[in-house]
Amino acid sequence: MSDPWLTSLMTETPQAGYELAIKLSRMGVKYTQPSDEIRGKLRPVYEKDADSLIASSHVVAVNFQTVSVANNYWRS
Amino acid sequence: MSDPWLTSLMTETPQAGYELAIKLSRMGVKYTQPSDEIRGKLRPVYEKDADSLIASSHVVAVNFQTVSVANNYWRS
Amino acid sequence: MSDPWLTSLMTETPQAGYELAIKLSRMGVKYTQPSDEIRGKLRPVYEKDADSLIASSHVVAVNFQTVSVANNYWRS
Amino acid sequence: MSDPWLTSLMTETPQAGYELAIKLSRMGVKYTQPSDEIRGKLRPVYEKDADSLIASSHVVAVNFQTVSVANNYWRS
Amino acid sequence: MSDPWLTSLMTETPQAGYELAIKLSRMGVKYTQPSDEIRGKLRPVYEKDADSLIASSHVVAVNFQTVSVANNYWRS
Amino acid sequence: MSDPWLTSLMTETPQAGYELAIKLSRMGVKYTQPSDEIRGKLRPVYEKDADSLIASSHVVAVNFQTVSVANNYWRS
Repeated sequence: MSDPWLTSLMTETPQAGYELAIKLSRMGVKYTQPSDEIRGKLRPVYEKDADSLIASSHVVAVNFQTVSVANNYWRS
Repeated sequence: MSDPWLTSLMTETPQAGYELAIKLSRMGVKYTQPSDEIRGKLRPVYEKDADSLIASSHVVAVNFQTVSVANNYWRS
Repeated sequence: MSDPWLTSLMTETPQAGYELAIKLSRMGVKYTQPSDEIRGKLRPVYEKDADSLIASSHVVAVNFQTVSVANNYWRS
Repeated sequence: MSDPWLTSLMTETPQAGYELAIKLSRMGVKYTQPSDEIRGKLRPVYEKDADSLIASSHVVAVNFQTVSVANNYWRS
Repeated sequence: MSDPWLTSLMTETPQAGYELAIKLSRMGVKYTQPSDEIRGKLRPVYEKDADSLIASSHVVAVNFQTVSVANNYWRS
Repeated sequence: MSDPWLTSLMTETPQAGYELAIKLSRMGVKYTQPSDEIRGKLRPVYEKDADSLIASSHVVAVNFQTVSVANNYWRS
């Protein structure tokens, strides 16, 4: 992808870090399936599948580990 | 989400840290499926599925790693 | 849960640490499905399913990572 | 594989690091299934399967952890 | 389990560490299904299932991370 | 296994480290299913299954984390 979408792992707050982890997780899907149309068709399916939702949360958790270390856990 | 729900990864005790890990895991689901109604319908299904419960515990374990490091494992 | 069940991640031995990892893994299930009765009904099913058993061991492995770091790997 | 494809884990930016994580994830598939033809036939299937896409993003997340530490999280 | 089976995470060599990771992975199964007889019946099934074998190797990989750090990667 | 197959986690290059991660992942399978004949029969099946290939790449990613830390990420 030529557009810049990830210039830093630093965030102001843990919540912004969690939301960056969600973005990272979605980009992992987008790199494999770049078509907005196809991803749009898949969304209503996995959004109503408990196991898909748990699996999505799992990916976010892994990315949140990365973002959390990068930010030194937002320790004050 | 505009509401603040995660202002710190610090907790007083390991148990509170574990419960924060559960919250993080559930928020991963909620960001993907924001509808309380749909999540409410899915709950009675996965709550009675052993593999879904094991998968849920797996996500909590990953988030608990993050929270545990953040708190320096609550070493006294 | 109001009852305290996790006051420390420290254990005397690696084996006690492994058993704490098992407890953490089971609590992840219990928080999602608090009913002892329902969990009791699920147990005979997943106990005889190889993939469920492997998945259970996976969760324990993740929690054992956490407990092991907390205890500095019980290095003498 | 005799061709060099991984000479360094260092990248200039987090985004380049994420793209390296994608490359690492694809190479894990390629080492197991070296045939371009067979991988080409599988692609249209998993590209339209939400669970496969989530699983792909999971692998990228694990590799991104590795690349991120290697680059000290691109902290300036 | 009352019998001691894990007194140390230290091993002489990486290979012994890998074999300890295998033991840890199997004990995760054994704690959930303590019956030797039932585990013996499951073995011929998952031993011939590629996905079960890959999942088993995944659990070993997680435990091998733990054992490797404990041994400081057997750096001389 | 009595034959030595893992005497060190150190490699000259990241690519050699990645290939060691692949070896570690395959040995996890081999310890569970030691028969070359049976593994040979399973190979043509999972080699053409996208989800098995993604799962294989996942295991490699976990082992590559271990090898990468051991080698201090091949930082020069």
